[in-house]
Amino acid sequence: MKTLTVALGERSYPIFIGQGLLANPELVRPHVRAKQVCIVTNETIAPLYLAQTRALFSGFDITEVILPDGEQYKTLDVLNQIFDQLLAKRCDRRVTLVALGGGVIGDMTGFAAACYQRGVPFIQIPTTLLSQVDSSVGGKTGVNHALGKNMIGAFYQPQCVLIDIDTLKTLEDRQLSAGLAEVVKYGLINDLPFFEWLEDKAEALYQRDPSALIEAVAHCCQNKADVVAADEQESGVRALLNLGHTFGHAIETGLGYGECLHGEAVAIGMCLAAEMSAKHGWISAAEVQRVRRLLVRMHLPTTIPADISCEQMQNLMKVDKKVMDGQIRLVLMQKFGQSVLTSDYDSALLQDTLNTGYTEAA
Amino acid sequence: MKTLTVALGERSYPIFIGQGLLANPELVRPHVRAKQVCIVTNETIAPLYLAQTRALFSGFDITEVILPDGEQYKTLDVLNQIFDQLLAKRCDRRVTLVALGGGVIGDMTGFAAACYQRGVPFIQIPTTLLSQVDSSVGGKTGVNHALGKNMIGAFYQPQCVLIDIDTLKTLEDRQLSAGLAEVVKYGLINDLPFFEWLEDKAEALYQRDPSALIEAVAHCCQNKADVVAADEQESGVRALLNLGHTFGHAIETGLGYGECLHGEAVAIGMCLAAEMSAKHGWISAAEVQRVRRLLVRMHLPTTIPADISCEQMQNLMKVDKKVMDGQIRLVLMQKFGQSVLTSDYDSALLQDTLNTGYTEAA
Repeated sequence: MKTLTVALGERSYPIFIGQGLLANPELVRPHVRAKQVCIVTNETIAPLYLAQTRALFSGFDITEVILPDGEQYKTLDVLNQIFDQLLAKRCDRRVTLVALGGGVIGDMTGFAAACYQRGVPFIQIPTTLLSQVDSSVGGKTGVNHALGKNMIGAFYQPQCVLIDIDTLKTLEDRQLSAGLAEVVKYGLINDLPFFEWLEDKAEALYQRDPSALIEAVAHCCQNKADVVAADEQESGVRALLNLGHTFGHAIETGLGYGECLHGEAVAIGMCLAAEMSAKHGWISAAEVQRVRRLLVRMHLPTTIPADISCEQMQNLMKVDKKVMDGQIRLVLMQKFGQSVLTSDYDSALLQDTLNTGYTEAA
Repeated sequence: MKTLTVALGERSYPIFIGQGLLANPELVRPHVRAKQVCIVTNETIAPLYLAQTRALFSGFDITEVILPDGEQYKTLDVLNQIFDQLLAKRCDRRVTLVALGGGVIGDMTGFAAACYQRGVPFIQIPTTLLSQVDSSVGGKTGVNHALGKNMIGAFYQPQCVLIDIDTLKTLEDRQLSAGLAEVVKYGLINDLPFFEWLEDKAEALYQRDPSALIEAVAHCCQNKADVVAADEQESGVRALLNLGHTFGHAIETGLGYGECLHGEAVAIGMCLAAEMSAKHGWISAAEVQRVRRLLVRMHLPTTIPADISCEQMQNLMKVDKKVMDGQIRLVLMQKFGQSVLTSDYDSALLQDTLNTGYTEAA
């Protein structure tokens, strides 16, 4: 087992990464404050891991909330179902919420914990690769709004993160690929050696080799923990973690939540960011192809779906949280393996990138 | 004009109290971060003060959100209407929200500011006595849930609080009385000289004498600012501000939000807390009568409405945020003018207090 720490002063917390961790109560129990525990999960995960998680907290007074599965349910209305249960079961402000599932469950449970009685503790148990390498670490919580993704939420840190790699055995291939997109992202932001390691390990990862997965997850979590410790509320360097996300969120919102997985949208978004960077002459066409090829080997899409128009893309990108005074700021590649957040780009080339983003470049 | 400060390190902020402040842009403008301002108010306040407030922020890019008026609209659904407008108008994360109205508008706007894009700045312009002396200071924000009041929210501090006493000229008598209940509360918690001052000034306050109002508001705000600086997240002394509130919230929830004003419910709750304290022998029957008499002179109710049963009261009190491990903690009077938060009371006397709370004691 590997143990990392997210260093945030009195809000610091550990990340445990390994196999068989769901069977180890010693890791999580010190992080529960009182008798009440509320496990929040979804209909897909409950039959697989709810019994084990219940055992992990045996002896506590356990409430269970089972939500429908999918990004389209990451709404204020569904969030309210968590509050309904907490209040019906008379959970007080020392209850510990446990997020058992992927990014949607983690984001919603964390936001419920941030808001219930103005804040109660919570624990992340991410069961998808995407949530293990990205969303469970760093305290970004929230729900979507019909007019924009993750527009309603809070920065709210968990008590600990328990990553049991064994849960990836039951993950659908498509979800695994979506997680790998976020893994690739870390390489492209500021870690070329890791990108090269991924070019070497793409098939091992897709075939779920445990040691490759543990290494990739730990590497990504360490990278993210460092970024979060340096910039918890995203006033600077943390914004780089949104590489591919401004394009990606527009695709997700445009198609309707749930049609395209978040990681798939990010994969397409990274291709667009790479393409746009190449059009500015910052990286080469060959480097764009390296990004595309790695993503294709991980069974990920690389072009904008035909169902969403170029005009829709442009409009949706304007509601991104990184917009300032009407200007869309984008994470682009200054050189290969080194990204920056910038509004200093040629708008005509953004337009051009969207126009040509529906097909592979020549 | 009086200026107080809520001392919370880098989250410290000023409270401005006086007459004619809505005409003074110099006070609020330094607290607006960028071009966008969103004024949130309700249908009652908009015709009275929206034009002045718009002028206060002239030169900014102003969005307006006008909500229905009443505690029954302090819900997640109505909160979402604020997000709808913010997103429709493409407000970015440097937008400043302005709460123009009473406690409901302040609580909802503050919570919207806490959650929109994971946190944007906001300014409080409270227009009711209740919000001026209590809810606009201290950063408690949130909405109600059908199963409990203020159960969903955040601790989130404003950039500044602008209290223009002139706005009380248009306040309904019943709302003024409700505010006076919270004023009396400060006297009963830990400030007997202030309680005595109120016994002297009850009619002047009810007749809206400006100098009496400024003195009362400034005294309450200073008291609250001190408590909040000592205990922002209510882990200790801040809980005393809930004198009368555990009983009061049960009455509000039991009757349905909007039937009984918050301040009216608190007035009844303070009588019950005094009565229960007397039953324990901590204060005298004559002191209970002093509380009742002052509240009656301020045109406030002092007994539980007949529409809500004793059993309902008991059940609703169990969902209070101060409940811990199933035990209801109450703010009671250890002696007259000195309250404590305690679970060390005789449950039979709580039952007895509720049973007899429907009529004036002999």
